[in-house]
Amino acid sequence: MAEEVTRVMVAVNESSIKGYPHPSISSKGAFDWTINKIVRDNVSAFNLLFLHVQVPDEDGFDDMDSIFASPDDFKNMNQRDRIRGVHLLEYFINRCHEIGVVCQAWIMHGDPKEVICHEVKRLRPDLLVVGSRGLGPFQKVFVGTVSEFCWKHAECPVISIKRKPDETPQDPVDD
Amino acid sequence: MAEEVTRVMVAVNESSIKGYPHPSISSKGAFDWTINKIVRDNVSAFNLLFLHVQVPDEDGFDDMDSIFASPDDFKNMNQRDRIRGVHLLEYFINRCHEIGVVCQAWIMHGDPKEVICHEVKRLRPDLLVVGSRGLGPFQKVFVGTVSEFCWKHAECPVISIKRKPDETPQDPVDD
Repeated sequence: MAEEVTRVMVAVNESSIKGYPHPSISSKGAFDWTINKIVRDNVSAFNLLFLHVQVPDEDGFDDMDSIFASPDDFKNMNQRDRIRGVHLLEYFINRCHEIGVVCQAWIMHGDPKEVICHEVKRLRPDLLVVGSRGLGPFQKVFVGTVSEFCWKHAECPVISIKRKPDETPQDPVDD
Repeated sequence: MAEEVTRVMVAVNESSIKGYPHPSISSKGAFDWTINKIVRDNVSAFNLLFLHVQVPDEDGFDDMDSIFASPDDFKNMNQRDRIRGVHLLEYFINRCHEIGVVCQAWIMHGDPKEVICHEVKRLRPDLLVVGSRGLGPFQKVFVGTVSEFCWKHAECPVISIKRKPDETPQDPVDD
């Protein structure tokens, strides 16, 4: 049967709810699903690749508190974003380490859907897993969905894992 | 980790090219991918559920040869369809048996995309795998795609496995 490991790319992002770089509900759901339903106890047969795409404009909702007065302020902001991204990836790497599955993780900047498809092209994983908020058609018009774009354009099979209804926050656009 | 087996539903159909009930190129590709990339050698952790949906009007392209003169002619046709469907499922069941993965298979009638989503609702698999011809947007307008409908409407995660470019027949609508 298959000789090489199955390489699963998981696109992860921060929660829009909490103040600290926790993973979003849908990222966490996508990861848990991948481990529980696909990897299971066959940990040596899979590699996980965690990609976090930071969106410069939307990343820190506490930018409201920022006053930019000098180039250093921007430098500090970039530094803070970097730290938040690293913390996020640390969560997933720690989980993989506990489970015993080999992984790697990295941060990119740009439009998540474009960057994810570009990284799929570059790294050729066997499978891309993305979380989805499971929004209705009306909400999608305004917020767009990364998962739908990736499903259509990524050059590998894509699984989109919808958030469980009981985990949906009060505002379903939050995650 | 996960205690229960992972139940993977695979939607399969006949080839439109050959005269005998061989699986379509994309069904075979979806099955091979599932075994090689997901199940691997962890065969006791997965159950495969093969669903074949027969479309009464499109099923036998050799209906051109059929002359219907009595109710028995329809009965014979139904009987022939049944045999073709059983042969198709036999291929996948034999493959699973060789590999050592538990499976079951059944035939339904109707519009494949609707029936597949209905069966997902009824049986609640962990994952639905469908083959896809990987048609372009222009071709899709005329032939529709089961995979896209299922991805949007099935109440479980869906993977669509695109046919490999080197397996695409002369007419890409064929499969």
